[in-house]
Amino acid sequence: MAVNLPPPDPQSLHRVPGVGLGVAMAGIKKPGRKDLLVVRLARGAAVAGVFTKNRFCAAPVLLARRHLANPVCALVVNTGNANAGTGKDGLKRALAVCKAVAEKVQAKPLQILPFSTGVIMEPLPVERIVAGVPAAIADLREDNWLAAAEAIMTTDTVPKAYSRKVRLSGGEAVITGIAKGSGMIHPDMATMLGFVAMDARVSRNNLQAMVKRVSDQSFNCITVDGDTSTNDSFILIASGVGVEASSEEDKKKLEQAVLDVSQRLAQAIIRDGEGATKFVTVTVERGRNEAECRKIAYAIAHSPLVKTAFFASDPNLGRILCAIGYGGIGDLDTGKVDLYIDKVRVARCGGRDMRYREEQGVRAMKKPEFTVRAVLNRGKASATIWTCDFSYDYVKINAEYRS
Amino acid sequence: MAVNLPPPDPQSLHRVPGVGLGVAMAGIKKPGRKDLLVVRLARGAAVAGVFTKNRFCAAPVLLARRHLANPVCALVVNTGNANAGTGKDGLKRALAVCKAVAEKVQAKPLQILPFSTGVIMEPLPVERIVAGVPAAIADLREDNWLAAAEAIMTTDTVPKAYSRKVRLSGGEAVITGIAKGSGMIHPDMATMLGFVAMDARVSRNNLQAMVKRVSDQSFNCITVDGDTSTNDSFILIASGVGVEASSEEDKKKLEQAVLDVSQRLAQAIIRDGEGATKFVTVTVERGRNEAECRKIAYAIAHSPLVKTAFFASDPNLGRILCAIGYGGIGDLDTGKVDLYIDKVRVARCGGRDMRYREEQGVRAMKKPEFTVRAVLNRGKASATIWTCDFSYDYVKINAEYRS
Repeated sequence: MAVNLPPPDPQSLHRVPGVGLGVAMAGIKKPGRKDLLVVRLARGAAVAGVFTKNRFCAAPVLLARRHLANPVCALVVNTGNANAGTGKDGLKRALAVCKAVAEKVQAKPLQILPFSTGVIMEPLPVERIVAGVPAAIADLREDNWLAAAEAIMTTDTVPKAYSRKVRLSGGEAVITGIAKGSGMIHPDMATMLGFVAMDARVSRNNLQAMVKRVSDQSFNCITVDGDTSTNDSFILIASGVGVEASSEEDKKKLEQAVLDVSQRLAQAIIRDGEGATKFVTVTVERGRNEAECRKIAYAIAHSPLVKTAFFASDPNLGRILCAIGYGGIGDLDTGKVDLYIDKVRVARCGGRDMRYREEQGVRAMKKPEFTVRAVLNRGKASATIWTCDFSYDYVKINAEYRS
Repeated sequence: MAVNLPPPDPQSLHRVPGVGLGVAMAGIKKPGRKDLLVVRLARGAAVAGVFTKNRFCAAPVLLARRHLANPVCALVVNTGNANAGTGKDGLKRALAVCKAVAEKVQAKPLQILPFSTGVIMEPLPVERIVAGVPAAIADLREDNWLAAAEAIMTTDTVPKAYSRKVRLSGGEAVITGIAKGSGMIHPDMATMLGFVAMDARVSRNNLQAMVKRVSDQSFNCITVDGDTSTNDSFILIASGVGVEASSEEDKKKLEQAVLDVSQRLAQAIIRDGEGATKFVTVTVERGRNEAECRKIAYAIAHSPLVKTAFFASDPNLGRILCAIGYGGIGDLDTGKVDLYIDKVRVARCGGRDMRYREEQGVRAMKKPEFTVRAVLNRGKASATIWTCDFSYDYVKINAEYRS
């Protein structure tokens, strides 16, 4: 059902010197699948992250946020259990996992960042995870990105990974990232889980500033169902064993390349959205400021009525006007609003474009990918987000998730 | 699929002296169904209303809001076309309908309130409506409430009407109401369409204050899909031919009875929610103020993940904690939150209740009606809203709405 691109070619995923990855089958939820990932970082690597703003954020999120203040040696990720809504006991269990990894990599538990994803409000099976750690450590390799992408999947139907290089003045830098997620996707800081690593040398302060800017233009621009998860985390790693981005131009180039990788990962999550059959770009233009453009874009992208019309390739476009109308701009002059599907103008000055014919709308919406563009004509700001449609399969997947 | 109560018994719908209703088949969208309603009011009737806050509010909403300032003689309602997203031309067409009715009832067009519901952004077939007006006028009768409820249905599967009497010091007052709606339901002022009439004498000012208070506790407490419609209107009529509510006690009694009728109509909309198989009451207790309780209640009620879990009778209750977490209370102490399904406590102090067994949750959620109760333990306020689940049929109905 999904609107996936072909799965990533393992050959296309460049090694990031200074970043090793190992996976294991720990039998956390079901036996026989990779469900544990350990990422080992070179000494001196810089790590920065952004996390969910959900008040019920998971125990591992609380610990990872705290441990980021220390020199980070390793990350540990499990699927099958989110360790969220688990209170103080959840914190103990997450710390026990950090401890098990720390012992194996000669570090302190507070140098380990833990991540979990899966079902909420069930106790983390910490013994099984701890028992799986040695196998994951034994598997550590720099060319293991695809296995890592597979090990963090839950309802995802394809692994999500992307890699590229960027030429800086001192030489080439490598950037590779993985992500997971296909439901409970409306990141408020970052997606369910996203990890992007580069070998370039970047200070922790610069990296932290970069991760905020990049997430705002990538993982914070997507929505599947409007549910902001308890476990969203986006982590940026600079192993530091490669070139340094010293000039302003180099820094810009590097950030642009990191943004490229992050946007592709974020879009891959939407393409693999639960039950998705359409990949839809929603652009709101000529608003007063970016914030109001985003509000309107999310109102369109969250409307179940709009999303089911996407699914049906039904240009029932009044539903989009309706969503624009309740999107929260109190003084919106609807008489100035234009609406386009790809290049077809369907509404002009707040009403149906007299030249628009329904076949045009059907033709545009039948495509697996199209753009909805609302032009507010009240300013110079714009915003773009990515979303998917709402199909029978979304209901099926989520009604049957635990069975 | 719906969780409807039995359809209203025509005998149970009391006549409201001073309020006549007539319906006709105008062939607005499809031939052979009642799609036009005229409500004729006794001279001196007071009318008050609340309307959608959607900026793309429909042309008839704009006119009805304006015409409320005059002595209202009649209401005219069509289904099959919302006359929303239709710009200035839509206003002209709505006014033409008012004119046609005004001529027949010896009034001015600005004494007529127009209402429309149906598909958005298509021109109102004003000729067909005007042609149907004489038949609706010829049909005017005080015992026509069930036919009126049927004439305003769109995707509704049952007509929605409720009636009761209330004894005041000067005698008995009669209150009868009808409503329609089952999708695009997240009223911001009122539901899709709700009309409640009584014969009691109430001044227009008092009636306007009453309609605000009543809608806040009835039509503003429901959500099917979070989409605030372009056409929501809730109209309260006091024909004034009956008793007067003069004492403070009478006024309270009358308002309580009007609230009762309005809540039953609002709940009937949820019971008939598109694809609904469950009727769910969401109560949030011990918050700091009512506004924050409502925010959390709506976060729960809007979450597609929570709603699909309702559909599956799957006590995947972590999804509810997740929604509470992103519900917008920035300083929520999740460690104090308790969660109940009916009387079963599933979470305590922000984590799973150790005594909770999953069979209890399944048993409660398998019922067609149950209550989700979140206790925030940070204040004394509370709020209750009503919602339904999210099923395959919601997608089916909305993917196929226009075909």
